[in-house]
Amino acid sequence: MRNIKLVIAYDGTDFGGWQRQNNAPTIQGEIERRLAIMMAAPVHLLGAGRTDAGVHARGMVANFHTVKTISCEGLRKGLNAMLPRSIRILSAEDAPDGFHARFSARAKTYVYSLFTGPVLLPAERLYVCHVPYALRADLVKDCLSIITGTHDFASFELSGSRDTARVGGRGAIRTILAADLHVAGDGHYRFSITGDGFLRQMVRILVGTILEVGKGRLAVDDFQQILRARDRSQAGPPAPAHGLSLQEIYY
Amino acid sequence: MRNIKLVIAYDGTDFGGWQRQNNAPTIQGEIERRLAIMMAAPVHLLGAGRTDAGVHARGMVANFHTVKTISCEGLRKGLNAMLPRSIRILSAEDAPDGFHARFSARAKTYVYSLFTGPVLLPAERLYVCHVPYALRADLVKDCLSIITGTHDFASFELSGSRDTARVGGRGAIRTILAADLHVAGDGHYRFSITGDGFLRQMVRILVGTILEVGKGRLAVDDFQQILRARDRSQAGPPAPAHGLSLQEIYY
Repeated sequence: MRNIKLVIAYDGTDFGGWQRQNNAPTIQGEIERRLAIMMAAPVHLLGAGRTDAGVHARGMVANFHTVKTISCEGLRKGLNAMLPRSIRILSAEDAPDGFHARFSARAKTYVYSLFTGPVLLPAERLYVCHVPYALRADLVKDCLSIITGTHDFASFELSGSRDTARVGGRGAIRTILAADLHVAGDGHYRFSITGDGFLRQMVRILVGTILEVGKGRLAVDDFQQILRARDRSQAGPPAPAHGLSLQEIYY
Repeated sequence: MRNIKLVIAYDGTDFGGWQRQNNAPTIQGEIERRLAIMMAAPVHLLGAGRTDAGVHARGMVANFHTVKTISCEGLRKGLNAMLPRSIRILSAEDAPDGFHARFSARAKTYVYSLFTGPVLLPAERLYVCHVPYALRADLVKDCLSIITGTHDFASFELSGSRDTARVGGRGAIRTILAADLHVAGDGHYRFSITGDGFLRQMVRILVGTILEVGKGRLAVDDFQQILRARDRSQAGPPAPAHGLSLQEIYY
């Protein structure tokens, strides 16, 4: 039995997120449907994680098992020929038997893009969040220092989200390996956050709350308190989905 | 009577081009409709030129006359609040009485973006033309040298296009002030072509024909002959609309 690893980029604008569902087109559903045609059999794609509706990806990873002998390059080209151009298979390769896109992942990087100038260009509107306020980059960086390291991120988890992420006993404890703010100087900013795992909506709620600090509505000390409180109701609103992209997954 | 100048950016993907028409949404039509609401009177917007269906703009210019006393900044913000986010008014200002977006223009710059790698990222698919072939940048640059200066570009004009551009007697003679190819090194290329005026589809037909040279299907000498022939049937197909953007207009 072969175990094939796919690296996938997508524009999440027109999809109900990664995970297959009945009432909206999803990335997983679109790829599985084409894979089933190419493999002449139903295929179950194991994704490294879910992305919410509207979130993009530059490096989602998924794997599936098959007995078919098609070449990986033929598979990649065939899928890309059938998929909408908003979903692209960047690579396909045979992976070791034990490889599992989700359980083998050691870390992921998410990128969140925003623009603080008065007018967001049309070509950026689907990929960059427009925050037309002065942003204190120094305070944002203070918050990013605070979250770096191992913490209980319960304040930054979608409330009511199921507990599947907690199997294994680590609860809401995650380790942020790196958290940076790139300042382009023309009003464009890019958060880059790498962690060993993320709770549901964690990056969006972190960015949404840190932006409250960057706009001066919360103090850095308040942010520190929110992290310590382990209480979702104390954090800010999630930043909009369309500014977020799953950049890379490390194995 | 005030004469107001607008600088406009748009994503042409979902529009039937700049010019107002009855059977498709257009940039001019969308802006005029909102202007009429704000001014409580019909408004005729004079555009610097037309762009084809699917072509984008970063710096289209248009002007209109009004007796209303609204501030330019109020006008800009009001229009942006009403327009879809695929159309943005970058600036609005009072212009001299004699200013005419089309007749006062001294030069325009168009940019054409393309990518030669195997997989075009989803976020670029609406703005970058995918040309998955090796491209000889040196030969492309030779062609760009050939078109620089004053020439009769009849070979690169949409056949059957009306002769309005020829009023004034210069026929298909235009002056290309600068024509460059920017090579990013990762498979991305950007043509930048500045001229005192352009015939219909001229940039797309030029790029389409030059790409034939860049792919090795035509020689540079062939390209020189095509320019001299002043015969549309000798040139190549127009490059796809979505790679083209009207970058800037100079007054």
